[in-house]
Amino acid sequence: MTGRFPPLREELQGIEPYGAPQLTLEQAPVQLNVNENPYGPSPEAAADIARAVGEAAVTLNRYPDREFVELREALAAYLNTSGGSGITPGMVWAANGSNEVMLQLLQAFGGPGRVALSFAPTYSMYPEYARDTMTEWVAGHRAEDFSLHLDVARELVLERKPSVVLLPSPNNPTGTALPPEAVSMLCEAAATYEPGGLVVVDEAYGEFRRAGTPSALELLPEHRNLVVTRTMSKAFALAGARLGYLAADPAIGDAIRVVRLPYHLSAVTQATALAALRHAPELLGRVDDLRAERDATVTWLREQGFEVADSDANFVLFGRFGDRHAVWQGLVDRGVLIRETGPEGWLRVSVGTPDEMAAFRKALMDVTIDANEEQA
Amino acid sequence: MTGRFPPLREELQGIEPYGAPQLTLEQAPVQLNVNENPYGPSPEAAADIARAVGEAAVTLNRYPDREFVELREALAAYLNTSGGSGITPGMVWAANGSNEVMLQLLQAFGGPGRVALSFAPTYSMYPEYARDTMTEWVAGHRAEDFSLHLDVARELVLERKPSVVLLPSPNNPTGTALPPEAVSMLCEAAATYEPGGLVVVDEAYGEFRRAGTPSALELLPEHRNLVVTRTMSKAFALAGARLGYLAADPAIGDAIRVVRLPYHLSAVTQATALAALRHAPELLGRVDDLRAERDATVTWLREQGFEVADSDANFVLFGRFGDRHAVWQGLVDRGVLIRETGPEGWLRVSVGTPDEMAAFRKALMDVTIDANEEQA
Repeated sequence: MTGRFPPLREELQGIEPYGAPQLTLEQAPVQLNVNENPYGPSPEAAADIARAVGEAAVTLNRYPDREFVELREALAAYLNTSGGSGITPGMVWAANGSNEVMLQLLQAFGGPGRVALSFAPTYSMYPEYARDTMTEWVAGHRAEDFSLHLDVARELVLERKPSVVLLPSPNNPTGTALPPEAVSMLCEAAATYEPGGLVVVDEAYGEFRRAGTPSALELLPEHRNLVVTRTMSKAFALAGARLGYLAADPAIGDAIRVVRLPYHLSAVTQATALAALRHAPELLGRVDDLRAERDATVTWLREQGFEVADSDANFVLFGRFGDRHAVWQGLVDRGVLIRETGPEGWLRVSVGTPDEMAAFRKALMDVTIDANEEQA
Repeated sequence: MTGRFPPLREELQGIEPYGAPQLTLEQAPVQLNVNENPYGPSPEAAADIARAVGEAAVTLNRYPDREFVELREALAAYLNTSGGSGITPGMVWAANGSNEVMLQLLQAFGGPGRVALSFAPTYSMYPEYARDTMTEWVAGHRAEDFSLHLDVARELVLERKPSVVLLPSPNNPTGTALPPEAVSMLCEAAATYEPGGLVVVDEAYGEFRRAGTPSALELLPEHRNLVVTRTMSKAFALAGARLGYLAADPAIGDAIRVVRLPYHLSAVTQATALAALRHAPELLGRVDDLRAERDATVTWLREQGFEVADSDANFVLFGRFGDRHAVWQGLVDRGVLIRETGPEGWLRVSVGTPDEMAAFRKALMDVTIDANEEQA
């Protein structure tokens, strides 16, 4: 055989697959690395999910509802209790995780000759969605406190004319939420050029926002080119079910229908998500606890003298460390797995249960005391 | 707003989303249009699926096993009972339906400047996968009986140097299986140029092949550039669960890992597929009945004077009709939904239960008698 094997695309060669290191619970009993909700569904909710899937299972020989009508109705109803109003099922689209939603958006609206734009530091999967859809990736910069310089951001949009602007709010890994005026300004800017740009506000962590921080869902009636994405992975404690979704003008879903794989949402996924939505009060019931634990974590870290980014999410970015990898490894050695991500010198910790956060605090104290002793 | 809305890519504008017409059971009680298995899981199998999902549900707050290790083990074990031998978990990759597997293959091995090649008439989604990955699509032609002219096929591969050759066997919508020598010849041809080509034998309907038709799985030890895909949608009666997979050299899965969305297979999907695989003998138990019903359908259609393609699948392509749409509509009017697809003048009917096939035969007689009377 003279051909290369395997004939992987040139630009993909040597790239490591995306993914946080996965350690077993034996290796690291306290897992605070991928922003999961530490509270699983109750036995009652789990039993209801099982019952719903059992009902769906007897007709699994048939393809699922390609239009997932019932699920779109339930998601629209939920959004109208979570910062939105007047959201109809026709405005909702869903896929296997919000990363599939993002990929579909870039398949429909990005591509060769087009630009996707965001502001770094931000979610590390965005450039991969751009790469996989042959969309040019442009990253502006955030201010020192990880907020957006509005005028600079607007100028960059007008200059690069992206067809998709990706604005996580709260941002990952910094936790920074966007004020509504920033979203509005960028929506207006993106509507002034050809072919026109969509502004995608990624609210994966939206339910954790602090009191007084509005959802971009409120702005949907004002901006036709605004797309707000959400996920059931975080506040809904359903990372294992892979269900992401968006709310936008119905024309957005119609466009995605051209590129979506037919029957992309299984009957099992639809049944699971519907059952979970019926248990929304319970599944979301720990969000307030997690916000309080987050705020306490921010306060404690600042008391220890760390720099800490304001957070509207269920994680906290803190620093700065001369050798962050050593700190990360020191925590792993003490059974606490956090994430080595974001700008150089910073680390990200997900908000877990009070016990998990106590373990994190103790381990961090040990690691930094050891480091100081070594220096002394 | 002066930008176009929505800013859909130029080449996607005006395209209708892929998908067979979906009619309700009231509109068409006999649904023979999407090659589903008419026999659903038994209540016992459905209950086991529900039990497995119930167990997974209590930890749905956690991300799923990104490497779906247990599922790959079970799929490898199954393939070794279904035409393969020596297939290891490292040789298996899976995704949400074999259409996601195909998309991932083209994301990794196709793309701008590269060619995907198949032979028409063939599965109508293939050009969409190529379009969505910016891969050039080249379609050679099949012989009058829908088989491949081996020398012509080989010449086309050597001329166009595709990085991916898509060979459904049995082919959809014609039902035509490929002889092993065709697969071997094209694997050898695709290994003679840069960057090298993969030969993907799409065995979505592989379990329905007639006695004496081997699976391309047998050829894996001989050809490193051979990829064999399967699905649980058809013989396994699990279309609603969306689980497609492949067997190939482990380097293929490693390459796909670079482009796959992280955690693409949900914990619910993994639990469902694993439970179904434990019930493989039951779920596959109707395959022989369906093959017999298929062969009887081919025989009956030929007795009525129709042209009928040889079929190794769970559907039959027959014709030819001067106005196939009128025949399709006449069947729908009589409650039987089949598929208007394939070359002009032909129609495709999925193999259903004996009652469903009796309804199809009666409706087809009525429609064609009416048509003859109109002509007289």
